[in-house]
Amino acid sequence: MDVLDDTMYRERLDSQNMLRPIRELPMQIQCAWQQVHESVELPTLHPANVVILGMGGSAIGGDIARSLVAEHSPIPIIVHRDYGVPACVDKHSLVIAVSYSGNTEETLSGFDAAVERGAHVFAIAAGGELIDRASKHGVPYYKFDYETQPRAALGYLLTPILAIFNSVGIYSIDDSLISEAVRCMHEEQRHWDADTPTESNSAKQLAHTLAGYIPVVCASQPLTVVARRWKTQFNENANCACFFEELPELCHNMVVGFDYPDELSKR
Amino acid sequence: MDVLDDTMYRERLDSQNMLRPIRELPMQIQCAWQQVHESVELPTLHPANVVILGMGGSAIGGDIARSLVAEHSPIPIIVHRDYGVPACVDKHSLVIAVSYSGNTEETLSGFDAAVERGAHVFAIAAGGELIDRASKHGVPYYKFDYETQPRAALGYLLTPILAIFNSVGIYSIDDSLISEAVRCMHEEQRHWDADTPTESNSAKQLAHTLAGYIPVVCASQPLTVVARRWKTQFNENANCACFFEELPELCHNMVVGFDYPDELSKR
Repeated sequence: MDVLDDTMYRERLDSQNMLRPIRELPMQIQCAWQQVHESVELPTLHPANVVILGMGGSAIGGDIARSLVAEHSPIPIIVHRDYGVPACVDKHSLVIAVSYSGNTEETLSGFDAAVERGAHVFAIAAGGELIDRASKHGVPYYKFDYETQPRAALGYLLTPILAIFNSVGIYSIDDSLISEAVRCMHEEQRHWDADTPTESNSAKQLAHTLAGYIPVVCASQPLTVVARRWKTQFNENANCACFFEELPELCHNMVVGFDYPDELSKR
Repeated sequence: MDVLDDTMYRERLDSQNMLRPIRELPMQIQCAWQQVHESVELPTLHPANVVILGMGGSAIGGDIARSLVAEHSPIPIIVHRDYGVPACVDKHSLVIAVSYSGNTEETLSGFDAAVERGAHVFAIAAGGELIDRASKHGVPYYKFDYETQPRAALGYLLTPILAIFNSVGIYSIDDSLISEAVRCMHEEQRHWDADTPTESNSAKQLAHTLAGYIPVVCASQPLTVVARRWKTQFNENANCACFFEELPELCHNMVVGFDYPDELSKR
């Protein structure tokens, strides 16, 4: 039997139980979509620009949302992974502050700066200081209840941003699109679920191929964000070095880098 | 004698003679600054946003210019490394198309899209199709005359963008700032010029330290662009794999990736 088909071995490897939130991703999306529409006051203004604040696993939702609509959005959407806010943030901006814990210091610093500049602000968190500050300043927020690693709460961190894009008219995303996405995810998951044996499981086969190597994930726009997500998941879940490159840009530099060191071709 | 102090050995290694344009960088900046002010019609509008089109060595000038002013610019500045233009480009946008050869297909595609949308466009190139199209459409342009690799013409590709930022009021950059930058560069170059012996040359010392390894260059904003430049220079000049990471973002993922593979700590 392949080691990855051995449940006990797998459970030892997956000490943080990442399997549960991965399996629950479709549920997360469905649940977050429903909750933001039932109990949250979504913004309806027409902003001059949108700035999404977040770091690491809490920023990737913003990246995915931005990539999804980048070719269609009539206004610039900026994902800001740093302290403070970009200089273009003013009272015509919509700033979405995202932090799973609610205590990310870079994001809190940006939240404060956005409030001070009179921007329209929206907060997304599972709790913490961000929700406290939003509450104090009368800033609308979405607070969800789901215990896991920040990066594994992707559904809760991404979906509210899509709902906001819809409510402010950047891109039309309706109930049927979300239901269809959830349905597709359930169907696709069968091909790489932990219970599917290696011989018909592309994820387990890939794991065997990559073990011991430094993966470099390459993708073109708008899938660069997926390459970035893979990179950070290799970093954080497998404690493995990994990098990502974007096309067509990499044709203009990275491709010439694979001659050296000699052993690299084997890594 | 250290091999890097051996002129003949160095000339064999530097088959494209990158040494000349590196030494001439201060001259490039000074020359480009003078030329754009003496003979080019710089835009003076107040755009809603600025989009810089470019790939590889022709995009890095845009990255550096953007990073320099990002904390101060009242409007979003986007560097677009792809075909076409972002959806936010309209008649209120300023689009700067940069291509050393003038024949980069992604940039030409973006130039056409920008003209079609009625954006204010400016072109920067050493010649080629971009200058022909600019001329045909009555688009103002800066055409320079300097033969080298695109990435080594940084002074000619970056400086006109700074002049435009100044002329449209994004950030004030005057003659004295440019003269001072050129003076500093001349002074600093002594510490890492090819003719400075290894024992007092930090660049040669670093080269010895890194030979045979996969460098990962890390920097925080606004120096991320410098890390990116190093990465591509390792790729293209040394034909060496290299990656870059940005701070503080890397604290949220990459740092946990250095446990594995075991041999990585030695690379």
